[in-house]
Amino acid sequence: MSQDHPTEGYEFDRDTRVDKHADGEFTATFTDGWTTFTTHPNGGYVLGAALNALGQTLSQPDPLVVSAFYLRPAVPGPATLRTETIREGRRTATGSVVVEQAGKEVVRATATYGDLSVQGRELHLEQAPQMPDPQDCPVLAEFSGEVEGVTIARRIDYRYPERPGWLEGRKDGPPHVEFWMRFADGREADVHSLPAMVDFAVPAVLEIGEFATVTVELTTHVRARPAPGWLACRVFTKHVSHGLHEEDMEIWDSQGVLVAQARQLAMLV
Amino acid sequence: MSQDHPTEGYEFDRDTRVDKHADGEFTATFTDGWTTFTTHPNGGYVLGAALNALGQTLSQPDPLVVSAFYLRPAVPGPATLRTETIREGRRTATGSVVVEQAGKEVVRATATYGDLSVQGRELHLEQAPQMPDPQDCPVLAEFSGEVEGVTIARRIDYRYPERPGWLEGRKDGPPHVEFWMRFADGREADVHSLPAMVDFAVPAVLEIGEFATVTVELTTHVRARPAPGWLACRVFTKHVSHGLHEEDMEIWDSQGVLVAQARQLAMLV
Repeated sequence: MSQDHPTEGYEFDRDTRVDKHADGEFTATFTDGWTTFTTHPNGGYVLGAALNALGQTLSQPDPLVVSAFYLRPAVPGPATLRTETIREGRRTATGSVVVEQAGKEVVRATATYGDLSVQGRELHLEQAPQMPDPQDCPVLAEFSGEVEGVTIARRIDYRYPERPGWLEGRKDGPPHVEFWMRFADGREADVHSLPAMVDFAVPAVLEIGEFATVTVELTTHVRARPAPGWLACRVFTKHVSHGLHEEDMEIWDSQGVLVAQARQLAMLV
Repeated sequence: MSQDHPTEGYEFDRDTRVDKHADGEFTATFTDGWTTFTTHPNGGYVLGAALNALGQTLSQPDPLVVSAFYLRPAVPGPATLRTETIREGRRTATGSVVVEQAGKEVVRATATYGDLSVQGRELHLEQAPQMPDPQDCPVLAEFSGEVEGVTIARRIDYRYPERPGWLEGRKDGPPHVEFWMRFADGREADVHSLPAMVDFAVPAVLEIGEFATVTVELTTHVRARPAPGWLACRVFTKHVSHGLHEEDMEIWDSQGVLVAQARQLAMLV
């Protein structure tokens, strides 16, 4: 871990734990604690385990960019993770990880790691979402963790400044939602959890009445090591066409610093 | 080819030609006709050849999402391309391609192909750049193809509504530029050239005085099969931090349809 706050013992770390074997191979056991309206573990959660393995095989501390292709739905239970070091360079290291369950490939991720403690020019032309403080946002009963099949709501605290339109049965909202997020058990976000957390948003297309989407590919840029505290998030879709849409997710830390930018291509089903 | 207009005989197709061998292996010869201020072939051009090989190995017609990691600069000369079919599904097919030169990996790309003739819901919350027609934009001498080391300017026609600030020595512009683009020899853009063309823009960070950037990873969503004619492009950067920045590139066709969305993580050097 490249960051100060220890993460051992928290739910995310327990559930993304991997055991190392020979030749770059790892094993993991996906739990049913990270599902969203289905019995399938959330894709970000699965990626979190995959990167746990990959991060142990590369020499650089921070994931800078991660691209994950989702091939089949994951299921709770055992998984094999095969890592490959593609290139170890001076400033960056690149590798891939293949996640298999029952002999079939579920996810293939490629990532370049580097060092985000390096200082450089800073220029920011867009700001964090401007929202009331999380403690001034209502706690939604729908996100209390009692929703059938949405076990991730027990792991993640969400705070919305306004009640999302889809909860009221509306389908006319703009697919652009801002909200707060953090781990429910007090674990602080770090560079290793961010590539998972970018997939923890309720899809923006629920606001236009589309409830069934499948991620084809998810790319995340980790832009800084997050400060402790709540994360300000913005999830949005601008173009739906040919049964496909892009979904962007941006995460800022409690200091207003952009820490992750993600985009996925998803399919309406 | 999934589109109507034949592409044989054009420069892009001649220079991205691949020869098929056994076991998913192809060979190519990169030319010096696609360089940008260096002797290295443009990363989009190299990816064009890689996808030419991958597209021949997958059963679906259109690249939907492509993620390419750039590991070393390519050089003019021979290259080996090793393709792998990861999954052939009903609606999509996913594969990867490794580009090697002199025994070293230069690019690794993964892509999911599908069928963009499938109709579905259409929703568009952002419009194509509003610019004067290309014929009303001045032809810049700097893009006439006579610039040392910028051979790509002989292959691509660029039209800017306004003279870019960096050409005047300014470093205070917003890193957000809109322009027209097309192949100089009359080849029409198609789904196979778009993942290359998203990397043909002059980097937006030139507007803030940053001239030396290296692409770490480039993800492209191909959103529609383009209509013939000029392409309206928008290239922009919003965040520079820790020596890294994202660059977004959007391409609309002559009918105002979004045909490609791309984002790369790049490093200032």
